[in-house]
Amino acid sequence: MSAPTPFPTAETGSPRPVIGVSMGDPAGIGPEIVVKALADPERRAAARWVILGLGESLDWAADRAGIVPYWHRVDADSARARGEIVESVVVLDHPDFHGAIRRPHEPSRAGGLASKTFVERAIADALRPPGDPARLDGIVTAPISKESWRRAGFQWPGHTELLAARTRSKRHAMMFVSPRLRVVLATTHVPLMKLRDLLTIGAVFDPIDLGHAACRRLGIERPRIAVCGLNPHAGEGGLFGDEEDRVIRRAIEAARNAGIDAHGPFPGDTIFIAAAAGDWDLVVGMYHDQGLIPVKLLGWDRAVNWTIGIPIVRTSPDHGTAFDLAGRNRASEGSTAAAMDLAVRLARVPAG
Amino acid sequence: MSAPTPFPTAETGSPRPVIGVSMGDPAGIGPEIVVKALADPERRAAARWVILGLGESLDWAADRAGIVPYWHRVDADSARARGEIVESVVVLDHPDFHGAIRRPHEPSRAGGLASKTFVERAIADALRPPGDPARLDGIVTAPISKESWRRAGFQWPGHTELLAARTRSKRHAMMFVSPRLRVVLATTHVPLMKLRDLLTIGAVFDPIDLGHAACRRLGIERPRIAVCGLNPHAGEGGLFGDEEDRVIRRAIEAARNAGIDAHGPFPGDTIFIAAAAGDWDLVVGMYHDQGLIPVKLLGWDRAVNWTIGIPIVRTSPDHGTAFDLAGRNRASEGSTAAAMDLAVRLARVPAG
Repeated sequence: MSAPTPFPTAETGSPRPVIGVSMGDPAGIGPEIVVKALADPERRAAARWVILGLGESLDWAADRAGIVPYWHRVDADSARARGEIVESVVVLDHPDFHGAIRRPHEPSRAGGLASKTFVERAIADALRPPGDPARLDGIVTAPISKESWRRAGFQWPGHTELLAARTRSKRHAMMFVSPRLRVVLATTHVPLMKLRDLLTIGAVFDPIDLGHAACRRLGIERPRIAVCGLNPHAGEGGLFGDEEDRVIRRAIEAARNAGIDAHGPFPGDTIFIAAAAGDWDLVVGMYHDQGLIPVKLLGWDRAVNWTIGIPIVRTSPDHGTAFDLAGRNRASEGSTAAAMDLAVRLARVPAG
Repeated sequence: MSAPTPFPTAETGSPRPVIGVSMGDPAGIGPEIVVKALADPERRAAARWVILGLGESLDWAADRAGIVPYWHRVDADSARARGEIVESVVVLDHPDFHGAIRRPHEPSRAGGLASKTFVERAIADALRPPGDPARLDGIVTAPISKESWRRAGFQWPGHTELLAARTRSKRHAMMFVSPRLRVVLATTHVPLMKLRDLLTIGAVFDPIDLGHAACRRLGIERPRIAVCGLNPHAGEGGLFGDEEDRVIRRAIEAARNAGIDAHGPFPGDTIFIAAAAGDWDLVVGMYHDQGLIPVKLLGWDRAVNWTIGIPIVRTSPDHGTAFDLAGRNRASEGSTAAAMDLAVRLARVPAG
């Protein structure tokens, strides 16, 4: 992967994008990893940052980590919150939730209500038109708990589906960017056996097409794209399944006809080795574990989840709330830091 | 993983097991990796070796690799081939096939007939009773080409299924042993969407049970076993599929009732990180790519495929014929060497 765009400085005079950061479930590791990731002054200087969350949770996490708070608190409902942010880091605080958030570190209705509010605000502000003083140029979302959301009455499978709905994006995909691998998924949070119905030519073409555009946005002029098979050995010539011939090969042909340098289908158990060695710019996985096992094994703590195909910039760490780690100052901010850096970079590159 | 048993030497006086090595498809990398792996004098000294193959192919590979042939040639059909092998390395040559094997390096009917003959002979000799002078204490199989076999009229999905049939083993499984991971698979060479029918409680219990026994044979007294889920996030509490609750959890309970330290189901995309870090002695994967992606990514060139649940010792490298590499002296013998070392080790440990 090519080197990231250098952070803008006073010298270069580049405008600093405004990046929103939703704090995630207050009982998870979200507050800690957000506080730690933005403790890096170079990262802070690359953008202006608006944290959607709870001042109290952030204060507590900073205290545990021995970090001096570096943010200004603004009430999320105040008039000031609707105006332009000039400080380097502002917390749009939601004091309504403070009383309701109690440890221990586990899923709760209160955590679901709070974290849903943070994300919705982030998305809404990212959808504001350019020039609006409260507009966010990109958002980074810290982990929410699906169980907390369920207890609060929200049935979304995850951030991605909520983002697609709020931005009315029919064609969207999860892409993962790590130092050694870029992966996009054809299907995500669905039962594996449902792929029999879900894996259509369009469902395979779209992530190839969206992933191609995403790679170009990252500066790769002509991305070399490898597409996985679904079955063992990519079907072994039809012996172990026919989706490769019936669906995947046709989607690849359609992509090639559209001028995309797509190849495959390749066996899932070897293509990631070639991609990690630099032979491919992007791998298109057919389902969640096929793409996420290699991303997490090779990119642990540095992989970023990027929602592509939606009209706003959104990245996130590639892990969950980790309730078992929360509150012990032992969580690593690596993936969140990488998500912030990618959001800054993308916010400065038009979607093409 | 614990250190391998030291090789027996004249000092220790341990008996040297007899290990058969089937050469695989003559047009693939089999001849080259067999010749290279046994070029190590320490490995040769650990056992007596019987290569089932073609003297001509081995000579050619040795010449390309700059290795002086270290084997004695015995005609596979001769009376001598049925007696005890006293040399360190003997090639049971099949001169009938010499004329038929022609390059280029691609699948062929002749390659299928030859490689099938080598494997069948290896299996048959491994099934001879103890005391039989032609008995093999274990076998290592170099890669065959399914396409070559198909052209020769053999429909076996792979070595594993042939071995299970020839040894009449209903309960068997593919296990992979690498320096950082041990993985056993609940299903292997089948269309992924067939798992809907194939993934029964017994189909998940058997690999847990067989993998447990296999780990004990490797010297792990009480193996800690992690079982993967099938669906994203191991089903996320039923939200993304019900196989975890309906099948996998019950198989784990049955294993625990049988005294096995099995846990799960765990999400496939994170459990291998924990296993590679040493938290688990064995991971049970539900399907081919789920288990093989991490094995190959972390263990490339050192991973061994071990067929468990059959009454003979059989290991193999975890890769295929690699026709594109063959004949260029560029193949690595690492996985084959590891397969040989494991076969020697297992041949000296009774199946318990």
